[in-house]
Amino acid sequence: MKTFYSPDHLRHAPREEFTAGHATPAVEVPERAERVRARIIERKLGPVLPPRAFDDAPLLRVHNGAFIRFLDRAHADWTTRYGTRAGDAAVPSVWPARGLRTMRDGDIESRLGSYTFDTATPILKGTWQAARSAANVVLSAAEAVKSGEASAFALTRPPGHHASADLYGGYCYLNNVAIAAQWLADQGARPAILDVDYHHGNGTQAIFYDSSEVLFVSIHADPAYAYPHFLGFADERGAGAGEGANLNLPLARKTAWDGYADALHTAITRVRDFGPDVVLISLGLDTYERDPICRLKLTTGDYKRMGTMLKTLGKPTLFVFEGGYNLEALAENTTNVLEAFEDR
Amino acid sequence: MKTFYSPDHLRHAPREEFTAGHATPAVEVPERAERVRARIIERKLGPVLPPRAFDDAPLLRVHNGAFIRFLDRAHADWTTRYGTRAGDAAVPSVWPARGLRTMRDGDIESRLGSYTFDTATPILKGTWQAARSAANVVLSAAEAVKSGEASAFALTRPPGHHASADLYGGYCYLNNVAIAAQWLADQGARPAILDVDYHHGNGTQAIFYDSSEVLFVSIHADPAYAYPHFLGFADERGAGAGEGANLNLPLARKTAWDGYADALHTAITRVRDFGPDVVLISLGLDTYERDPICRLKLTTGDYKRMGTMLKTLGKPTLFVFEGGYNLEALAENTTNVLEAFEDR
Repeated sequence: MKTFYSPDHLRHAPREEFTAGHATPAVEVPERAERVRARIIERKLGPVLPPRAFDDAPLLRVHNGAFIRFLDRAHADWTTRYGTRAGDAAVPSVWPARGLRTMRDGDIESRLGSYTFDTATPILKGTWQAARSAANVVLSAAEAVKSGEASAFALTRPPGHHASADLYGGYCYLNNVAIAAQWLADQGARPAILDVDYHHGNGTQAIFYDSSEVLFVSIHADPAYAYPHFLGFADERGAGAGEGANLNLPLARKTAWDGYADALHTAITRVRDFGPDVVLISLGLDTYERDPICRLKLTTGDYKRMGTMLKTLGKPTLFVFEGGYNLEALAENTTNVLEAFEDR
Repeated sequence: MKTFYSPDHLRHAPREEFTAGHATPAVEVPERAERVRARIIERKLGPVLPPRAFDDAPLLRVHNGAFIRFLDRAHADWTTRYGTRAGDAAVPSVWPARGLRTMRDGDIESRLGSYTFDTATPILKGTWQAARSAANVVLSAAEAVKSGEASAFALTRPPGHHASADLYGGYCYLNNVAIAAQWLADQGARPAILDVDYHHGNGTQAIFYDSSEVLFVSIHADPAYAYPHFLGFADERGAGAGEGANLNLPLARKTAWDGYADALHTAITRVRDFGPDVVLISLGLDTYERDPICRLKLTTGDYKRMGTMLKTLGKPTLFVFEGGYNLEALAENTTNVLEAFEDR
């Protein structure tokens, strides 16, 4: 399996995030992707390739143009406003809740608040370059699959599935898997996205909610107790032309493999029924039993079982890296999925 | 002039707030009201009286019942969830931006995000008691004016004018001035609210936006550069029956008395034209030239001029304490308004 990777992700190296009332050490850190890359090489999974450069057109198919310009400029505007205090990170502290006016053209404080939904997703000096390169990575991997590869792995960082057309959040800026799915659809493919990250892929869901062209299925911790809290419930089934093309499978706290496998079986059945010719997996490994910020109970061995089950779909498959924060186990858990998928 | 005051405000003593990407020392602190109270006694402005206890009915005329129950329970629920880390303060880190679902009955994280619009307004163990007592303070002062006093001062803390029917924020939890104005209207009065705090009174505006019974006029720093960023623009003139009963007078950075007096003259004219029989002043002193978080340029002497101008309305007047964060000058600036109003 080819892996696509860019060292530009190193430019996005947050030191801390703000959650639950105070700053805590960041968990979405460069070492995540570096460890996975090292293990892919060690395990001889296949070549690790640089992406080619795509223009903005595929991004603009899923993201708002003003939002992209905002992301590109946000850190510079923040620095102009605040200098380099605040740890060099742009973080919102006020936002347009109901009854307040969204200010997409206002000062940097109001633009930050208008374009995000959390305080845990800092914008650093190199964030835009990292996110923009991740889009090249996922598009290059999509191109490989479109060109006949049975599978590919986009080692994207920062992750993407929480970002919607015009909102960043949840460590995500551009929605990598959505950009790839839309690009594939625009090439005439029929994509299905299966999101196995611990957290609901609210951004991906929102982007394709009205669409019948792209199926979105997600297995995740129930938002009744887990981030992103405000989307990912079972009653969200799509709207308009997309009615029925969205399936959420929320899980109870501490769900282990048996319960997880039931949901995965349901998800795979739904994907198969959709009749896709390409499958995109939002591959989060934060379902792991010792993930520092999550509460499901998959073991390292379970990720082999996951890969084996995904293989039963028998479709060209693009794996897109999302979350997973236990640095000790992340690389092994990731390659366990990919190796089992390749039946190695 | 009678002042109403409760020591319960001391129960709300935030140590820090989260703004611009990091925790900073809190500015909305108990010493604010204590200094003002001491100076009122020193200057012999009149008696400082305890409030009487009102039931929840007047609060429920402007606030949502579920919101009030949320405020009452939030700190206990936060402590159950997180223990006493995070400095004992409940602070949101994720919220339902557009496309996400407001979760008023969810876990504490989702309720915090659903009921506020900033990270600068911590909920502490004693916050609800302090806010609830402030409502008693403002209602007692309103009762005094209704009973024939020419004026009264509600030394309310925490402040209120940023809180809407079901959103807290901007150091505000319950909207003191709105509660008093609605109570007076319910007694058959015709109230006008004039908000001279540095920040737009977005909560007060929202509460009365559809109403022709209560006029709202605000002079404040232009939200194009100042908090609350997302409301307070000149084109907000009321809606429905309230069309025309809302007037915002945003000011440029560094506006000093000459420019301020022009706006105040416009505001007073509009209040007079409304024909109120009672005037409520949201009295923020953060327009002061050396306020630590603000950028207008009023001097200590200008607050006497403000009091003199307000007196020209010739109406029973209820002053309600809002912002103002320069601890050295706050008490003098406050009593300068009140003494000039009394022509002392």
